[in-house]
Amino acid sequence: MLEELKSAVCEANRALVPAGLVRLTWGNVSGIDREAGLWCIKPSGVDYEALRPQDMVVLDLEGRVVEGAHNPSSDTKTHLHFYRSFAAIGGVTHTHSPRATAFAQACQELPCFGTTHADHFHGPVPLARMLTPEEVAADYEHHTGVVIVERFHELGLDPLAMPAVLQAGHAPFTFGKSPMDSVKNSIALEMCAQMALDALRLNAALEAIPDHLRDKHFLRKHGPGAYYGQPPL
Amino acid sequence: MLEELKSAVCEANRALVPAGLVRLTWGNVSGIDREAGLWCIKPSGVDYEALRPQDMVVLDLEGRVVEGAHNPSSDTKTHLHFYRSFAAIGGVTHTHSPRATAFAQACQELPCFGTTHADHFHGPVPLARMLTPEEVAADYEHHTGVVIVERFHELGLDPLAMPAVLQAGHAPFTFGKSPMDSVKNSIALEMCAQMALDALRLNAALEAIPDHLRDKHFLRKHGPGAYYGQPPL
Amino acid sequence: MLEELKSAVCEANRALVPAGLVRLTWGNVSGIDREAGLWCIKPSGVDYEALRPQDMVVLDLEGRVVEGAHNPSSDTKTHLHFYRSFAAIGGVTHTHSPRATAFAQACQELPCFGTTHADHFHGPVPLARMLTPEEVAADYEHHTGVVIVERFHELGLDPLAMPAVLQAGHAPFTFGKSPMDSVKNSIALEMCAQMALDALRLNAALEAIPDHLRDKHFLRKHGPGAYYGQPPL
Amino acid sequence: MLEELKSAVCEANRALVPAGLVRLTWGNVSGIDREAGLWCIKPSGVDYEALRPQDMVVLDLEGRVVEGAHNPSSDTKTHLHFYRSFAAIGGVTHTHSPRATAFAQACQELPCFGTTHADHFHGPVPLARMLTPEEVAADYEHHTGVVIVERFHELGLDPLAMPAVLQAGHAPFTFGKSPMDSVKNSIALEMCAQMALDALRLNAALEAIPDHLRDKHFLRKHGPGAYYGQPPL
Repeated sequence: MLEELKSAVCEANRALVPAGLVRLTWGNVSGIDREAGLWCIKPSGVDYEALRPQDMVVLDLEGRVVEGAHNPSSDTKTHLHFYRSFAAIGGVTHTHSPRATAFAQACQELPCFGTTHADHFHGPVPLARMLTPEEVAADYEHHTGVVIVERFHELGLDPLAMPAVLQAGHAPFTFGKSPMDSVKNSIALEMCAQMALDALRLNAALEAIPDHLRDKHFLRKHGPGAYYGQPPL
Repeated sequence: MLEELKSAVCEANRALVPAGLVRLTWGNVSGIDREAGLWCIKPSGVDYEALRPQDMVVLDLEGRVVEGAHNPSSDTKTHLHFYRSFAAIGGVTHTHSPRATAFAQACQELPCFGTTHADHFHGPVPLARMLTPEEVAADYEHHTGVVIVERFHELGLDPLAMPAVLQAGHAPFTFGKSPMDSVKNSIALEMCAQMALDALRLNAALEAIPDHLRDKHFLRKHGPGAYYGQPPL
Repeated sequence: MLEELKSAVCEANRALVPAGLVRLTWGNVSGIDREAGLWCIKPSGVDYEALRPQDMVVLDLEGRVVEGAHNPSSDTKTHLHFYRSFAAIGGVTHTHSPRATAFAQACQELPCFGTTHADHFHGPVPLARMLTPEEVAADYEHHTGVVIVERFHELGLDPLAMPAVLQAGHAPFTFGKSPMDSVKNSIALEMCAQMALDALRLNAALEAIPDHLRDKHFLRKHGPGAYYGQPPL
Repeated sequence: MLEELKSAVCEANRALVPAGLVRLTWGNVSGIDREAGLWCIKPSGVDYEALRPQDMVVLDLEGRVVEGAHNPSSDTKTHLHFYRSFAAIGGVTHTHSPRATAFAQACQELPCFGTTHADHFHGPVPLARMLTPEEVAADYEHHTGVVIVERFHELGLDPLAMPAVLQAGHAPFTFGKSPMDSVKNSIALEMCAQMALDALRLNAALEAIPDHLRDKHFLRKHGPGAYYGQPPL
């Protein structure tokens, strides 16, 4: 079942450690087959280098496991809520990559300080609030998704134009058209956070780049007028 | 004698350099067989990549070498005091990993600034004081252990719920259920210290995450209600 | 056509990731054959490790593609303007290497804080201004080149004595006598930016080294009195 | 001639890049055979991975090349002055390792902030002044050595108890009993500089560790009472 998707999700999970995004088992990637109405995710607490496609856990959009011998990631309900809320996304990555996590811990959004950022994220990467004690007690992972989706709705954000979020006190999540696309956005986010930390060191009052420059770089790569890369095969 | 333990301790020592925790010969891991009442540790000043299980030095709980052709680690008496004082630990790792050591040198505990920290350490990682001239002169390595154990008692800490400590002016030690588990806690500590350094750069007045979030993350992974990972085989 | 140049440009592009200058597809190198009046550049959005010499896109000095099955880099018009304006350069590298990009984002030139810098860059690495909305709308990549060349003319700079520039809000470009020489200048620039970030952390009021030291180091390696390295074969 | 020494110097030079101390050709190691009164050094501007023992340049203590087809390192006269002035040293390493160089560029000595430092350097790593225009003009590399040796004499330092120095505006040099020993001191220096940068970020008014702790760590590893490591074979 879903062999292609399981392979893609496995490959995307295995890319996390070589990309420098993950230590130990601190991250997970999922992907969805919208036609089948099924998605799959990394099993919980398993080392990346041992992962095989058949180890992926397949779930439906009610969160029921429909295939797989392992427990799914402890963050499964968060991913589920993203797939139910954001119809356009095809993959989700969660890491604790250190510089993006530093912004999350400092409870600060990541401003768009340069074109590297604008190439991937069409504005500041938003901060989602911490959960209340009641939300944590009731269903921590589900409410993590709820709070993030609410934040996107408040700000009127499209998760493919803003495929990243920082949860206060926790860490980043990124979205993508595919599992590997969401991993690439995690790489971009971590690099932009690193550049921002150093740029703020040089100028603590630094402001975002102007809109015309931000829009130019985002729209070179995204949307109907994009001209970056090669035409689809 | 203790073939399994010597292999586990050897493997854990050899993991230090690839994990980015150690340069030159700046670190050592030990492990204990509680039933046998024996433990073993890296030989002093030997390169990691040349280590073989038979090079490990086996000692009893009086600190006497019972097997091994090499001098044990110069930090042997510190490890010994931990095994005598903390009945639940199965492994100890000592490194000079740079960001954790920066906190130790700055004589600051490491606050719990996020869920990455809370996943591993149930509260701030404590700081143990520097030794006095008298303690250094009398028995430096033994008193290093004494001062750390005293600090755990003062704070009422369980070394498996708080498996790390920073010694002022020196460096970190971590504990674990096994030798490799203590290495993993050293990896987690170094990453949390890196994140904390950058989060403090963004907000010098940053405070710890609230207790309900800290407890949720720690207890997802530890104790009777844990649901992270796979069931034991 | 231009087999040697295509191989050299391919090799220089493939060197970007191992050198730690580039993540994803954030960089490109080009090179020119002045006698043929032709130059070539990386294809847009293609992974580096898959690049072969025959994938390079060959253009003339009017910017017309004369050979190659792929779209050239989206930054092609910027490179073209450099080759038309700077007769002595043989290669151009563009990256978003993180510390150099932090200076660009902070809108600061990179002062000559030490001999490492002076060995490669004969003075402060200049900052070129951001483009206006009109320039972006008219032809973004062409005007990027125009603004940088204007800055070199304003400051009276020779692009082989100052083979680097930071564009405000964007990232660095470097020049060289050959494609690989421009990559080496990108490596030097990134390291000098890293050293400068840390040196400024230690002394926020740090000033450039005196001229006699700067000149000595630059002229040890460059020009008729150079005595660094081996005589040409 | 001097096959063993040339092999040791070659191996020590080749260790610089994997140790993360050197980019491009920014470093060199030399070693001496005191009985023969001859020493050898890396050829200038040659890549490390291509180095073979027979490429090393052999010189006498007057600085005359006695064997070797290449130009010696441009820093040869600096090394020569160290061998003439410090009878106990057997190897010298020069790098532009980034954190140690940041201290040199900031014109600050490196205080002894912890036991990692004290294990290798018996006190603060000294700063040597910049050369005057006259010294640069007369003989830059020779006077670099002169200024450093004068600084050691002023401070009454033994180059094996303080096997490192930072030259203002330039970079570090380290000493050792052998070529590889001097490389290890460069590794230790770079790590101590990294830890110091981060410790100072946490506490800008941080002071050196007390003498009793510094002395204990240094003397555990050095001198007649040392007990670190294994007995000589």
